[in-house]
Amino acid sequence: MGAPRRAAARRATQMELAMVLNSSLDQRQVRTQAIEAVTSLLDAEVGSLLLVDERTKDLFFEVALGEKEEQVKQMRLKMGEGIAGWVAANDQPALINDVQNDPRYFRRAQTITDFVTRTMLCVPVRSKGRVVGVLQAINKKQGRTFSEEDLENCLTLSNQVAVALENAHLYAELKETFLNTAEALAAAVEKKDPYTGGHIRRVVEYSMAIAGHLTMPLSDLEDLRLAAVLHDIGKIGIKDSVLLKQARLDHDEIAHMREHPLVGEDILVHIEQMKGVRKIMRAHHEKWDGTGYPDGLKGEDIPVHARIIAIADTFDAITTDRPYRKAADWKTATDEIKRCSGRDYDPSLVEAFLRACEAGDIIILGNR
Amino acid sequence: MGAPRRAAARRATQMELAMVLNSSLDQRQVRTQAIEAVTSLLDAEVGSLLLVDERTKDLFFEVALGEKEEQVKQMRLKMGEGIAGWVAANDQPALINDVQNDPRYFRRAQTITDFVTRTMLCVPVRSKGRVVGVLQAINKKQGRTFSEEDLENCLTLSNQVAVALENAHLYAELKETFLNTAEALAAAVEKKDPYTGGHIRRVVEYSMAIAGHLTMPLSDLEDLRLAAVLHDIGKIGIKDSVLLKQARLDHDEIAHMREHPLVGEDILVHIEQMKGVRKIMRAHHEKWDGTGYPDGLKGEDIPVHARIIAIADTFDAITTDRPYRKAADWKTATDEIKRCSGRDYDPSLVEAFLRACEAGDIIILGNR
Repeated sequence: MGAPRRAAARRATQMELAMVLNSSLDQRQVRTQAIEAVTSLLDAEVGSLLLVDERTKDLFFEVALGEKEEQVKQMRLKMGEGIAGWVAANDQPALINDVQNDPRYFRRAQTITDFVTRTMLCVPVRSKGRVVGVLQAINKKQGRTFSEEDLENCLTLSNQVAVALENAHLYAELKETFLNTAEALAAAVEKKDPYTGGHIRRVVEYSMAIAGHLTMPLSDLEDLRLAAVLHDIGKIGIKDSVLLKQARLDHDEIAHMREHPLVGEDILVHIEQMKGVRKIMRAHHEKWDGTGYPDGLKGEDIPVHARIIAIADTFDAITTDRPYRKAADWKTATDEIKRCSGRDYDPSLVEAFLRACEAGDIIILGNR
Repeated sequence: MGAPRRAAARRATQMELAMVLNSSLDQRQVRTQAIEAVTSLLDAEVGSLLLVDERTKDLFFEVALGEKEEQVKQMRLKMGEGIAGWVAANDQPALINDVQNDPRYFRRAQTITDFVTRTMLCVPVRSKGRVVGVLQAINKKQGRTFSEEDLENCLTLSNQVAVALENAHLYAELKETFLNTAEALAAAVEKKDPYTGGHIRRVVEYSMAIAGHLTMPLSDLEDLRLAAVLHDIGKIGIKDSVLLKQARLDHDEIAHMREHPLVGEDILVHIEQMKGVRKIMRAHHEKWDGTGYPDGLKGEDIPVHARIIAIADTFDAITTDRPYRKAADWKTATDEIKRCSGRDYDPSLVEAFLRACEAGDIIILGNR
């Protein structure tokens, strides 16, 4: 194949890589795809992407591929340190075909990864005029060296990576603003009741900790977090005389209080995108054996997110002070949840809850 | 230049087009760039992008470039109608170098635009396995015809357009969900006060109508909408005895009520991205002459969004029933706002408000 045709073929590949890179707004996926792209485009043994920590200006590996993943992820480079640090600090690419004799080389990396770097191509990733990261191709395959043409291709790829990273960043930021705003508004509603202050934040934490010991897709985790944030929002429709009562509720008051999952669902009824979240909010007081409310759903008919929130909700209720009793300790709380496994709670989720407790992922936050 | 090198040069252009397309998450901008890309890549006189209306399945021009923009934007094609409709219905490209004799040609377009179509390249835009639009290049320049190679390039571009459209769609959808959720929560808070029911929605409508008669960048319009949605959220911190009082408030009650802009700001205090919105919320009771609260800001020191919301807020207060008086009519309301122009309100914004009224963009929604 002649040089022009080879170049044309490579550009076609670059078009495909650009498309794959831009096909996701998920930050982790974009980063992974950037590493795969630089490795395959430059025919390298290994590729990597370092990002600049906006606060400390250190470079870090958010995603690392391969068997040394964990060790690599713990490495941080100061701005200016090593070849990647030099590239970031000087906003200039580096094409080095004798890495071992380059004075900039960061030898500690070799000790950590047990990997000998021979050749390296390293380019800055620029977004809005700032260096946001560094893209690296390490060891051209079959003992060859990197060329000026490789460098040119790598610079083009780095522009595509910058665009894809920026889009994923904007999307993640908007999602975060949305979640934080929903949480701030829900917390403001909750503030009316001095005895449950901080309940939302704790239920969110506990729910996510339980989910961390299950395998849930990202979109489910996001629904879980949003539903945990909003689960009690319907309490805004409960009369102050009931909501703030400093004693046990009578029969009618309990009936009124039990309307809150329905009121909560109703508040979001016109928002198509919140359909899944609404279903969870409605179901967070259902019980595994079918004796919960408002629908008396049973077992797996209850959305899994609602079954998780139910455990987190109870755990927080037991471990915080209430008008008519003091907070219970850890053992009392976990014993109570174990006792109600299979009756109130999904046994497999109680297992996940206990695993999260053992792993130290659930720490009583309390309201004092 | 030989054929392979020419192809390589064109692919370099495609790489750049792909990058430009993906550099925005704004739907309108992506659409405009798609049209510019297809026109320049294929050396055509005109390019266009039709989108499929998900509900009706019609094809429509969301963005049209050039002097016939308004006429073009009013055209809609049924699925299967015309060449573009055929392409969408059959999910197949069409390369036509003698459009006038093609039985699929939609002759009405020619009458509407006064533009004679000779040659046409038309390809489906596919996202997640569905046809979401049609990308067209019309009239190859200098009387030439479109080639098979043009078709291939157009198909590659259409894949990039699909990715960029999908990302912009996801971003817009998330933003909409965020705004709608914030509005639903704010409306739920507002519901506690039977006399202001629907106030938020009306203030949002009136504020956006006034802004429509100014020239504000999109990001400012978004901040305005969000701030209008949330402007009274601080009322959640006002005691029911004051908030729900069925008579005029005494001195202390007024002082307590006047805390609501500060409470509102405080609710969102930890959300970095809401800094601008917080500032507007805090300032929505400031007055042009400096006699407002909480800071006594004067003139242009008051954020413009807050100056807009102040007018919208008053207009709604005057035109709705309150505990101690009935709603006033249109003339009374606009006279009152004119009377307070330069004192309470920014005169140039009162002008914009009156232009919006004259244009029929402000219709009293009221609370009855």
